[in-house]
This record gives sequence, C-alpha cells and structure tokens, in this order.
Amino acid sequence: MTRWLAGPAMARANALVGGWMAEAGMAVRVDAAGNLVGHLPGSDPDAGTLLLGSHLDTVRDAGAFDGPLGVIAAIECVARLRAQEVSLPFSVDVLGFSDEEGLRFGTAYLGSRAVAGTLGPELFGVADADGVTVGEAVAAFGAGPGAASRRGERLLGYCELHIEQGPELERRDAPVALVTAIAGATRAEVRFTGRAGHAGTVPMELRRDAACALADFVLAVEAAGRSQPGLVATVGRLAVLPGAPNVIAGEAVASLDVRHADDVVRAAAVDALRERAGALAAARGVELAWEQRMATPAVAMDPGLTELLATAVAGRGVPEVRLPSGAGHDAVALSELTGAAMLFVRCAGGVSHHPDESVQAADVAVALDVLHGFVLRLAEVAGAAEPSASQL
Amino acid sequence: MTRWLAGPAMARANALVGGWMAEAGMAVRVDAAGNLVGHLPGSDPDAGTLLLGSHLDTVRDAGAFDGPLGVIAAIECVARLRAQEVSLPFSVDVLGFSDEEGLRFGTAYLGSRAVAGTLGPELFGVADADGVTVGEAVAAFGAGPGAASRRGERLLGYCELHIEQGPELERRDAPVALVTAIAGATRAEVRFTGRAGHAGTVPMELRRDAACALADFVLAVEAAGRSQPGLVATVGRLAVLPGAPNVIAGEAVASLDVRHADDVVRAAAVDALRERAGALAAARGVELAWEQRMATPAVAMDPGLTELLATAVAGRGVPEVRLPSGAGHDAVALSELTGAAMLFVRCAGGVSHHPDESVQAADVAVALDVLHGFVLRLAEVAGAAEPSASQL
Repeated sequence: MTRWLAGPAMARANALVGGWMAEAGMAVRVDAAGNLVGHLPGSDPDAGTLLLGSHLDTVRDAGAFDGPLGVIAAIECVARLRAQEVSLPFSVDVLGFSDEEGLRFGTAYLGSRAVAGTLGPELFGVADADGVTVGEAVAAFGAGPGAASRRGERLLGYCELHIEQGPELERRDAPVALVTAIAGATRAEVRFTGRAGHAGTVPMELRRDAACALADFVLAVEAAGRSQPGLVATVGRLAVLPGAPNVIAGEAVASLDVRHADDVVRAAAVDALRERAGALAAARGVELAWEQRMATPAVAMDPGLTELLATAVAGRGVPEVRLPSGAGHDAVALSELTGAAMLFVRCAGGVSHHPDESVQAADVAVALDVLHGFVLRLAEVAGAAEPSASQL
Repeated sequence: MTRWLAGPAMARANALVGGWMAEAGMAVRVDAAGNLVGHLPGSDPDAGTLLLGSHLDTVRDAGAFDGPLGVIAAIECVARLRAQEVSLPFSVDVLGFSDEEGLRFGTAYLGSRAVAGTLGPELFGVADADGVTVGEAVAAFGAGPGAASRRGERLLGYCELHIEQGPELERRDAPVALVTAIAGATRAEVRFTGRAGHAGTVPMELRRDAACALADFVLAVEAAGRSQPGLVATVGRLAVLPGAPNVIAGEAVASLDVRHADDVVRAAAVDALRERAGALAAARGVELAWEQRMATPAVAMDPGLTELLATAVAGRGVPEVRLPSGAGHDAVALSELTGAAMLFVRCAGGVSHHPDESVQAADVAVALDVLHGFVLRLAEVAGAAEPSASQL
C-alpha cells in the first residue's frame, strides 16, 4: 500500500472514508489542500469546533494503521455519540490529512500545515518526480476552491489518535499512552576524510582509515543515546568511498539523528557528539566535516486537553502511561493553530512503516472508549453536555 | 589511462614497447594470450631462458608505473647488456603481460597464467561487458596462433620489478626491496541482521541495531590487523539497510580482506575474527552470516634468485630491505612455472591505482642497476658470463 497526496489511491480512500463520515452523520468535503473533512454541527453555533483526526497518506509499501487508524477512530467516535444521541454544544470536525509523510513531494505535514494556516503559498509550486506541482495535483484531484486554513475560527483543540510506532506500551503492558510532547530532532551529515590505500600493502599503523573513524563515531552515537533517559541517537545511513574490498576507505559519511522531548538535552547531546567526533577523527589523523541539516524544536502537547485524556484513561480503568513521541505527527503542525493532544495505541513490536504494522482490536476498543470519554469530558468542561440515558 | 586486454590502448602500447624491444635487439612477437614477448637469444642454445617483465594492462584511471615500469626496466636492462657487449649464455625473454589487473573480463593474471600453462581453456570463453569473449578479443587483436605456455622449456627463473604500492620503503628510506613472499589473502562477506525500526521511537535499550554491530566488527578487524606484525585486515566496503537517516539499520554488510605472508597466521587471524564477530553479534541479539569468498595461499619467492638479487643490492651499496608483498603480482602465476623473484621500487606515499602514482628517477636508476647486476650474477652462477671491459 502506497498512498500519496492527491493520487488515485487517495481518491479511493477519500471516497471510502468519506462514505463512512456521511454514514456517521457528517457533512463531507475535500478542502483546498486535498484534506478530507467531515463536519458534525454542534447545538451552539458559538461553541466552536473540536478537531479530531490524523492522516490518510502513507509511506511507500506501508502498513494499514499509521494515520488511517486515527481518522477512522474519530469517525467511530462521532458515530457512537450520534448512536447515543449525545448532543454536543460544539461542532466536531474529523480531518483526514492529505500529506503527512510527504512521499510524493518531499514535503511533510502539508495537509495539516494548510489547516493550521502555516503553509506558504510557495509550497504549491513544489513539483513531484513527474514535474506535476502540488497546486496542479490538488486542482486535478478535485479539491475544493475554499482555503484549507482554519485560522481565526473558534477552536477547542485538536486530538489525534495514532499507533505508538515504538515498543514502550508493549514493554509496559498497557494499551494506550498519553503523549507528553513530540520530540525535537537534529539531523546532521558527518564526513570523515582519511586516506585511501591498497588493503594489501599499507601497514596498519600507517593507515588513516575513514571506515574505522566511522565505526568509532557509530559507537559514540550509540553511547550518547544511552547516556540519558528519553534520548535516542541513530546512524541510519552510512557509506564509504571508494567502497572496494581491497581498498582502504578514504572517505566515510554517516547520517546522525538525535531526538529528545527536551530541546536543551538534545542540543547538549549534539554538541557533545560533535566534540567527540572531532576528538576521534583527530586521534586517527582523519578530517571531520559536520553539516547540520535540520533542527526542529520539541512540541509540548496541550496540558488541559491531555488532562482530559488522562481522566478518560482513568475512567476506562487502564494504566496511565505518559510517553514523549519520537516520531513527528500532524499534531506538530496543528499545535501552531490550537491546543493539541495525542493518544498512542500499542502496536505489535513497535513496527511501523511496514506491511507488518498491526494492532490488537482490544487495544483499539480501549482507545475508542478513551477518545469518546475525552469528547464527553470536554463537553462537560464546556459546561453544556447533555448526555442521553443510553450512554450511562 | 585505462588499458585492458586486447583493446586499442593495448595495441598502441604494444607497438610502442615492442619498438623499444626491437631497438634493444630483441625479436618481438605477441603470443596467443596477447602477451608482448621480446626475445634476446643466448650464446648457448642449451642454457635455457631467463624471464623478465611485468604487465602492460592497467586498472581504470591508472597511474603510469604499476606494471609498465617492470617491462620497460627489463628492456633497458637488455639494452644495457647489449651496449656493454655482454654475451649471456642463456636467452632473455622480456614479457609484457596482457592482463594482470583483469579489468576487462574480471579475470586476473590471465596473461601470466597463459605463459605458466595454468590457464584453463574455458577462460577463453569468458565474455566482457559487450559479450566479446577472451578468445574473440585475442584473435581480433592479432595475437599469434602459437600457444602462450612456456611449460616444458628450460627456464632459469622469472624476475619482476614493480612499484611497492605501499609506504614501507619511504618509511625505511630505501630505494628498493627484495620481496620475500606474496601474501595470501582471505576475503569474506560478513552480514549482520538486526531489527529495523523508527529512529525516533525505539528506545536505545530495545534496539538491535545492525549498524552498531557493523561498527563493532570494523574496529575488531582493525584490532586484529594490529595484533601481529605483517598482518593487514581491512573493511573496505560496507552498507546498511534500509539506509535512511530516520530508520535504525536492520541489516549491515561488510567486506573483509585479511592478508599475511604466512598462511597459518592468516588462517588463525580469520578464525579469531569470525569467532569475535559471532560474540559481538550475540551480545547485541543480532544474527551473523559469514561467507568466505576467496582464500589464496601465500607464494614464497625463490630463495636462490632472491639471494642473487640481494647480492646485486649489496653490490649497489644500498640498504637491504626485505618485504612481503601484500598485493598480488604476475610472479604468483609464474611461480607455478619456474622460480620467481621480485624487486620493489619505492613509490611516493605508497599511492597506486591512481594517476598520482609516482617514482623517483634516482630510485629507478638503482633498481635498474640491481636488475642488471642480478642478470650478470645469474650468468656467473651459470658459470659462463663473459663481461666485456666496458661494464667494469
């Protein structure tokens, strides 16, 4: 399964999911950024709107749950409220974002940034591998002419349900977790330049082997990641040149990815690693080049909304687990528009971005109850919930 | 410069070098394997033939000296003997081998194996990237119809002059070295299979990171190489999968190249490394697959010929340095036909297989004197040298 912004697979998904939105009593549209939007009006036109949802696009050769689970859970929540004849004062909009993974255009959060009103118009000129721009793709997709941005509206917040994509919930034997923050990330490209040579003729003590400097660095990155709770540090891509079995590597390149929910911890870890890489290179007579490619700050989830989720978790009788998210989510983009909260669902082995992605139905049932409880509690806080007898 | 078996560049080189052979008084032919052969007859038809030479083919984008220096030095040696009116009892054949590097057909020592009579006929059916076979290429090249093999002839030995391709002579401040043996080599492909995962979401302590296992291994290989004099151990090629900055490596592959002039030392080092790799993998919960790709034994140089070279070195008044060769040479193939000896010439920075390859004229002059002295001493040993007054 591979489903990208404004492609045929997305058109089929929108038709299917949009049908479920309509069945749940929502008015359905596709906004100007290709996002699928289902609208359930509230009883009080001035009470504002609660946003629920996640993304419908996927990575290449994806699993079934990363993204769509959050959209479908939100629809099911609305369907349950309707079945229970709960009249909410506020409207509920379920959003199926069109582009979180950024597969087609190399963008990320394109759909949710459009909703948040933070998407620059220049992004509509970005072209895919076939030269088709975002603007052309979205227009050909039949997206509505109206702006996608919800900036300026009265919004009560955004709540996103998503698979964990990690093994913490399995390890802690819990079905769901409250997300505390979405970790900031630093990416760098680290290059070691030594001296190539004949693997048979250059004695060990005269070598300036870039592959060995790379190996030192990979282990230093691992040690750094292990040095503090919640820190992760990864070398996921590496290469040596010229790359022949009988030639000592003259050059080696590694990617670095460092994440933590606390930006100060992350920055300190990156600085320490850079210093360490310099010392390792110097000890080998190898040159170091360090190029920072990206640094995004951590995004804290809204405390008020998260406490409502916590109350719903307690009400459901499952353990309260709080986790930072190491992966990015649409909630990062939405948090620039309104308060955002996230609920993680346990997934098998922490596997994601792979067809093996899976969740237990029982865990999803708990998550649905928590999301449903969250909406009811939000309505209570808003002071105007009118629960029907059937839900008690 | 890129010059391969039976190609146009080789035709030009053979014309040029063959012309120099003829100027030096030799009869010139191209044998059935495309080797250039210059023949200087001796005074005694029963005294046999001394073989001198090296290869005329090159790697891609090569330097000027790896191979050709040994051919041209042999021609110059013959020219000097003629100029000095030395009458040798034995014949001297100067060989310009057609294929040592194996660039065109992925073969190695094709020319010298043909001369040694160890080349299976099936090799003439091997095709290049354009589907042309060795047999077709050599025939189109105008190689003579006669067999290239010298097996069964009375041969006095083979002596090859070659650049060192390493930095030992620079380090020891000596112009030439006697080669003791050509190191045996073991090649293996080593694969670590861990578990891919999201770089942001999988905690450090739950990872089975194949890139980290690879890093452990690269450093273990380096430590193994450093553990014994004369041992070299190299990881020159490596890769991780899936190879994305934000994905923990699930799989990592490394090449291994281990060389030593003593096969027992080499085999023990490889066994120890394999055991170490297994322990490193096990400690990380990562699987190890070890596939040996090649294992060639060391080839000792002929002691008698090497002592003649040593005498010539002493006679020239330069330090005697003895080195094993970590790189392979035509002498490996020739040693199956007759006794082989090699003389290394210092090269700048140990650089080879690169346009920057270079030698000092003064070092080459020393090497020529040594080669010339070697031939004269061989004639003395044969008991029939008749030096003219002019050489004294």
